[in-house]
Amino acid sequence: MNDAWIADRMKHIDASGIRKAFDMAKSMKDPINLSIGLPNFDVADPVKAAAIAAIEQGHNAYTVTQGIPELRGRLQAAVDEQFHHADRQVLVTSGSSGGLLLALSCVVNPGDEVIVFDPYFVMYRHLVTLAGGTSVLVETYPDFHIDVAKVEAAMTGRTKCVVVNTPANPTGVVASDDEIKGLASLCRRRGVLLISDEVYRAFCFDHPFATPATWNEDVLVVDGFSKSHAMTGWRLGYAHGPSRLIQEMAKLQQFSYVCAPSMVQYAGVVALDQDLSDHVDAYRRKRDAVVEALADDYELAYPEGAFYAFPRAPWGTGTEFVAEAIRRNLLIIPGNVFSQRDTHFRISYAVDDVTLRRGLDVLREIAKGSTRA
Amino acid sequence: MNDAWIADRMKHIDASGIRKAFDMAKSMKDPINLSIGLPNFDVADPVKAAAIAAIEQGHNAYTVTQGIPELRGRLQAAVDEQFHHADRQVLVTSGSSGGLLLALSCVVNPGDEVIVFDPYFVMYRHLVTLAGGTSVLVETYPDFHIDVAKVEAAMTGRTKCVVVNTPANPTGVVASDDEIKGLASLCRRRGVLLISDEVYRAFCFDHPFATPATWNEDVLVVDGFSKSHAMTGWRLGYAHGPSRLIQEMAKLQQFSYVCAPSMVQYAGVVALDQDLSDHVDAYRRKRDAVVEALADDYELAYPEGAFYAFPRAPWGTGTEFVAEAIRRNLLIIPGNVFSQRDTHFRISYAVDDVTLRRGLDVLREIAKGSTRA
Repeated sequence: MNDAWIADRMKHIDASGIRKAFDMAKSMKDPINLSIGLPNFDVADPVKAAAIAAIEQGHNAYTVTQGIPELRGRLQAAVDEQFHHADRQVLVTSGSSGGLLLALSCVVNPGDEVIVFDPYFVMYRHLVTLAGGTSVLVETYPDFHIDVAKVEAAMTGRTKCVVVNTPANPTGVVASDDEIKGLASLCRRRGVLLISDEVYRAFCFDHPFATPATWNEDVLVVDGFSKSHAMTGWRLGYAHGPSRLIQEMAKLQQFSYVCAPSMVQYAGVVALDQDLSDHVDAYRRKRDAVVEALADDYELAYPEGAFYAFPRAPWGTGTEFVAEAIRRNLLIIPGNVFSQRDTHFRISYAVDDVTLRRGLDVLREIAKGSTRA
Repeated sequence: MNDAWIADRMKHIDASGIRKAFDMAKSMKDPINLSIGLPNFDVADPVKAAAIAAIEQGHNAYTVTQGIPELRGRLQAAVDEQFHHADRQVLVTSGSSGGLLLALSCVVNPGDEVIVFDPYFVMYRHLVTLAGGTSVLVETYPDFHIDVAKVEAAMTGRTKCVVVNTPANPTGVVASDDEIKGLASLCRRRGVLLISDEVYRAFCFDHPFATPATWNEDVLVVDGFSKSHAMTGWRLGYAHGPSRLIQEMAKLQQFSYVCAPSMVQYAGVVALDQDLSDHVDAYRRKRDAVVEALADDYELAYPEGAFYAFPRAPWGTGTEFVAEAIRRNLLIIPGNVFSQRDTHFRISYAVDDVTLRRGLDVLREIAKGSTRA
């Protein structure tokens, strides 16, 4: 084929960082794997049963793009009860990533700027590129909290939106009420759309989750069942926000991937009634183990949520440090996959306790060897 | 919210045609519904069982974006056996529409032209718009066959690709071997990518299906299980084409909707072994009934495939004719939803025989009333 057939945007959608990490990992046999960004528990039995019942009952055809009324109604009622926004509507999406794709495609014009915090979830930058926009990075090093003044300083006449993610991937840091309120107010004052990716909100260990939609009724929230309910392969998410934007997103969904998987939407209704507290408690204990194990040897921003920690490499670059970890059979992800900097690395502690303990032991050993750098 | 937040592209993604049709339909109670573009049979029991087993066995997490090896391997083997192209790779996608979104996003630069046949499947035009391109329409009225000379005349220095769909939605017309060979050769000669949407290929009633990939190894084929296996709600498709393009599509999928639903991919393996001939025979008989019922009163291009027919309205515009049908409790879709012209209407005959009979009776009655126009 003619290489010139590939659109220019694809040159800027670069998978080389994560690919290099996984290429390094290919040589590993039965690694201690702290690289995986998904829960280590399975879908709950009642949720599985609901998906199975939907299949058996023949709910296997397209649904309306907005989502089946049973699910959308439940989500809308919860959103109405929480926010009391007259104009806030819900759309069921194909994963939270589907919601992000729709949102950014519906708002970003070529040349528009989108403010993204660095470190970032890689998909944000690529979806901005897909929409023809430019990501403007606002660094949150070293504590990974939001400095609202830095966000305001990054705003220009071309700023269309800000994407915020709390609890955050890759850092595990949870923004405070004050940060989120300040960011929400800034965006309202400057007439900039704020997109809030809340897919990890179930995993907040130390204080209640704060959403910017509390302080700004125009915030678009992207949420999903993948992380909270271990349904990453099921592709079920939802978005809620101003009705005009939600309707544009629904229109685009109708003409792209049509609807979230049918049986999964029925399962989502049951998922809403699941008690997640055992999983949250388990991840809080794992988080505590990570912090305790690394406290002496690593610079670590306190991770209050999600299931990630993002320590600074005690020697070398993030990539060099990860290469050494891989030599010791520990798979972690270098920080430059999520950042312009290559100084940190990401641990996912969504693993069983034995694996986590083994991984933390290796990290303590490598830190002691820091003199080699 | 600020209406200026909505990206310009969304002004060109217009759902008003189909919305008007469904708004008209809202008043109908228990309509004779010949408007639905999906099979009237359910997923086969062994395929359901495979999805259920996958759920029960815990195959509920993200898969690799390329698709599970069990499914991709089967598809790759079939593609290799059929085409013997050294460079043809398979990617599992989230429905065939997911494949189309990826393909057009990976090849269309802003300002590029994409040739689309009119009448068209609406999604093509909207996905071209999403990618920043322009749809150049090549009419196929009145017989809905491909005139290769007209396609060549429509090509310019900005033509990036041609999208062809056979058997076609909305017309049910199947392109001949000669047409497809001619189109494939034209695209090869002119260095233009040909995207072949083959999602209806299982439903070819009168002669074997012809794919342009037979005559042009750079053709990108988009295919899926939705229509052939009644899995429209399950969102499982696949694409095959030149490895470079497939790899770009995989990269974009990784950073957008991640993977096709996990349990559905396992079901896809079993779906490949299903015998579809009973369904094809049933639809052939329904097609025959449509042609027989309408032959005397309607101008109708002979529908050799899919489950659609696209007769010319015997009086008035397509929209006026459909309004009269709806007054008589028959729901069909006006041609201007699929076309720049408003002269025809689409019937889907993927319904039970009783419903089809009732619908055809109404159509014969309305045609007799043609003097009223």
